[in-house]
Amino acid sequence: MGGDHAPEIVIEGAAQARERFPDIHFLLFGDEGRIEPLLAQHPRLAEAVTVRHTSEFVSSEERPAVALRHGRNSSMQLAINAVSEGEAAGVVSAGNTGALMAMAKVTLKMLPGIDRPAIVAPCPTRVGESAMLDLGANVECNADNLVQFGMLGAAFARTVFGIEQPTVGLLNVGAEEAKGRDTVRQAAALFRETKLPFKFHGFVEGDDIGAGTVDVFVVDGFTGNIVLKAVEGTVRLYSEYLRQTFRSSWVSRLAYMLSSRAFRKMRARIDPRRYNGATFIGLNGIVVKSHGGTDAFGFANAIGVAVDMVANDINDFIIRELADYGEQQIPKSQATI
Amino acid sequence: MGGDHAPEIVIEGAAQARERFPDIHFLLFGDEGRIEPLLAQHPRLAEAVTVRHTSEFVSSEERPAVALRHGRNSSMQLAINAVSEGEAAGVVSAGNTGALMAMAKVTLKMLPGIDRPAIVAPCPTRVGESAMLDLGANVECNADNLVQFGMLGAAFARTVFGIEQPTVGLLNVGAEEAKGRDTVRQAAALFRETKLPFKFHGFVEGDDIGAGTVDVFVVDGFTGNIVLKAVEGTVRLYSEYLRQTFRSSWVSRLAYMLSSRAFRKMRARIDPRRYNGATFIGLNGIVVKSHGGTDAFGFANAIGVAVDMVANDINDFIIRELADYGEQQIPKSQATI
Repeated sequence: MGGDHAPEIVIEGAAQARERFPDIHFLLFGDEGRIEPLLAQHPRLAEAVTVRHTSEFVSSEERPAVALRHGRNSSMQLAINAVSEGEAAGVVSAGNTGALMAMAKVTLKMLPGIDRPAIVAPCPTRVGESAMLDLGANVECNADNLVQFGMLGAAFARTVFGIEQPTVGLLNVGAEEAKGRDTVRQAAALFRETKLPFKFHGFVEGDDIGAGTVDVFVVDGFTGNIVLKAVEGTVRLYSEYLRQTFRSSWVSRLAYMLSSRAFRKMRARIDPRRYNGATFIGLNGIVVKSHGGTDAFGFANAIGVAVDMVANDINDFIIRELADYGEQQIPKSQATI
Repeated sequence: MGGDHAPEIVIEGAAQARERFPDIHFLLFGDEGRIEPLLAQHPRLAEAVTVRHTSEFVSSEERPAVALRHGRNSSMQLAINAVSEGEAAGVVSAGNTGALMAMAKVTLKMLPGIDRPAIVAPCPTRVGESAMLDLGANVECNADNLVQFGMLGAAFARTVFGIEQPTVGLLNVGAEEAKGRDTVRQAAALFRETKLPFKFHGFVEGDDIGAGTVDVFVVDGFTGNIVLKAVEGTVRLYSEYLRQTFRSSWVSRLAYMLSSRAFRKMRARIDPRRYNGATFIGLNGIVVKSHGGTDAFGFANAIGVAVDMVANDINDFIIRELADYGEQQIPKSQATI
């Protein structure tokens, strides 16, 4: 029931995902009276769906604490319960991000050795794609959090991108060791002291994201959230300039028509719907947050992210990895900010 | 003597600036033996130049504290001294940013009522351009710093962009009042309590930068620096995609040739050299930092920024404004992070 056009785009997105993943089965939580007529338009999807009726849902403005207290019978909470009870392999929602995170934390709990979950998503780079985290779950982070985000991000890059030995970089204001915030320098020291199942690259800067210098970019959730949205805004700005360029004369209009196929390909590469689906990582369960304003194609991709992580047993992988390297390998610094 | 191609691009940039601003006079600080032969190639510039010889300069790797202690006779320190002594109206450097900031702070001091200088620069938006600060001078900021950055940024927007009543926004992870870091929420409260010579818009998000939602974006220097470079990296990535698109077939190559004039215009709009020249604002003197890797055209633009600010008496304006609104109007909170 979450997002700008629910439940319509959720149902249509599920129908698209069903074509891509024929073995998938959906539990749909929400208002039966609104869901059933939509399902009637998608008979192939309807075969693979169980509807769990509830008339309550979390609104997009609701504060997380309020949602947590009063949302026990909300579609969001019931969907998370299904993961917690092992009935569902993961949950996908286009609803209120803060409420989803709060409910998921309380209900699913953290993986052993992880203090706080993070939001991770892939971003396009010159050489392919990289993962960036935290994208907004934690506005204040200490050095331990950043080190744990490195572990989680590396597990994401291995299971979702299939990179055997991912490289991890810490976002900072300069590449030199003496630069930046205390927290970030402490985190770098912890990365260097610890035997890690990935390669710690050191500090990276903002322009390393587009360059794809590392496979995983680690940053606090305040900066990460603003950076992510600034990058999205820049893509929109550039696209607007491009549109104006092609409309500036009849010759350039013709030029656009000539190269429209190539441009379709380019647009597909940077299509934000392709990168829809941010993962709440570090939780004892798969939780994927879709953009609230996405369409059916975007929502189907968010479902695809959840399917990928289920298929690759990402959490088992993280647990094994943390056990292998021992909890003592994740240093607990005294660092706070 | 600073930057990747000094003193060549500095001299060529000065020569270009001299054509644009015929009344300008330059004091050039550096190695006479290297400067004079270059000046010989630019006789029109040479008429407007006084060379102050020094064999010492600050390298790009030097730590600010070291530069400050051992760089008394460096070209950078001598140029700043010329501003402090009223011999020069402003200083432009493509050298070590940290050293330039440290020397400028110690030598020029802060304007009355300002605790810390910030780095401010214009950025292109869908509707024109906006100012963003701090871009890296202060990796940790408290609420008072952010409020002062708002004052400084508004003065910049008024004098450099000519906007009578600029709007100021605080970058945060969401637009709602309850969102984000304590520091940012405290700063918002201070903005709202204070009678200000500009309009405080409230919280803005990362994608508001490209949209140009406000004239001035206020953020701590850690986040601001990473955001700025991430945006630059995204523009580079998008340009690379565009290049690949046009090279993908002979038809799209032809299309590019047809629309090459329009594309030249578009490139000019997003040309980072056009936006070269970050201002150290809040200091008792005009200090402009050019990108180290820029060319003569970019360096000339950085000189142009300094000329603009001198011509508009930006610091007199800030001092008058702070006096008008009274020092008590810049609240001193107990906020620290």
